[in-house]
Amino acid sequence: MEKWMEEAIKEGKKAAKIMEVPIGAIIVHEGQIIGRGYNQRNSKKSTLAHAELIAIEEASKVIGDWRLEGCTMYVTVEPCPMCAGAIVQARLDKVVIGTMNLKAGCAGSIYNLLDDSRFNHQVSVVTGVCQEACATMMSEFFKTLREVKKTDKIDGRFIEEL
Amino acid sequence: MEKWMEEAIKEGKKAAKIMEVPIGAIIVHEGQIIGRGYNQRNSKKSTLAHAELIAIEEASKVIGDWRLEGCTMYVTVEPCPMCAGAIVQARLDKVVIGTMNLKAGCAGSIYNLLDDSRFNHQVSVVTGVCQEACATMMSEFFKTLREVKKTDKIDGRFIEEL
Repeated sequence: MEKWMEEAIKEGKKAAKIMEVPIGAIIVHEGQIIGRGYNQRNSKKSTLAHAELIAIEEASKVIGDWRLEGCTMYVTVEPCPMCAGAIVQARLDKVVIGTMNLKAGCAGSIYNLLDDSRFNHQVSVVTGVCQEACATMMSEFFKTLREVKKTDKIDGRFIEEL
Repeated sequence: MEKWMEEAIKEGKKAAKIMEVPIGAIIVHEGQIIGRGYNQRNSKKSTLAHAELIAIEEASKVIGDWRLEGCTMYVTVEPCPMCAGAIVQARLDKVVIGTMNLKAGCAGSIYNLLDDSRFNHQVSVVTGVCQEACATMMSEFFKTLREVKKTDKIDGRFIEEL
């Protein structure tokens, strides 16, 4: 699982390079990566440009169906409610998470939307894979962002919004 | 509010015409419709092609920002977890709902993701606007679908998936 999470981390690093919160995701089907995504919410000015949704959209194109049965997502940070809901809707089998998001995560922290028997699909959840690497990627990004903010090179609101 | 919900119902009818579950949504900002969407999940083979997400994406393009502050969504059926999460992420002010979805709705039925103080944004929720028209649009669609299924013109799995 570490091997795949490293691929998700690579995606997260692409986000950091463009000053986006570094979250990356990949989707694996039968030993192949069929979807990749990294957070681009600010650069694309789109709520839907979260890593997980981009990876789901790409995987659906490869599979030719919105149903991603037999697929596993590897994501560096616990999904938000939108992304957790999309994972259930897309019928993924399993989600492997790097580090948890205690403020807004919906795979165990605030809710566990992924594994709720009231919905018509349940997703297996594995947590803590490459936890330190995923958490460090986030903390280093925010440290850099605070330093950049001191120089007033970016809108302060950007940080408040995170 | 009824006037706007009728516009959302018009969107829902577009979905019914292409044999998609008839759910429609619009987004209103300063008295103007800036986003419209209808469910196209099967025809676009995309989990993300729910009415609400399509409307959010369109509205973001009009506003030029992922933040849809000051905006209200009118949606014919209570949003699923993915769409409710997207509404919170997009920072909409208010969501006006036609009819509830007791099986999967996340604006009061299973959860209320829209108005949870643990998230960094809360959305006002109004329910039951044009309730009968929205509920009838759904029940008539499923009645037609069952009749079509009897003729074996469509894949039975389609109905099971709904």
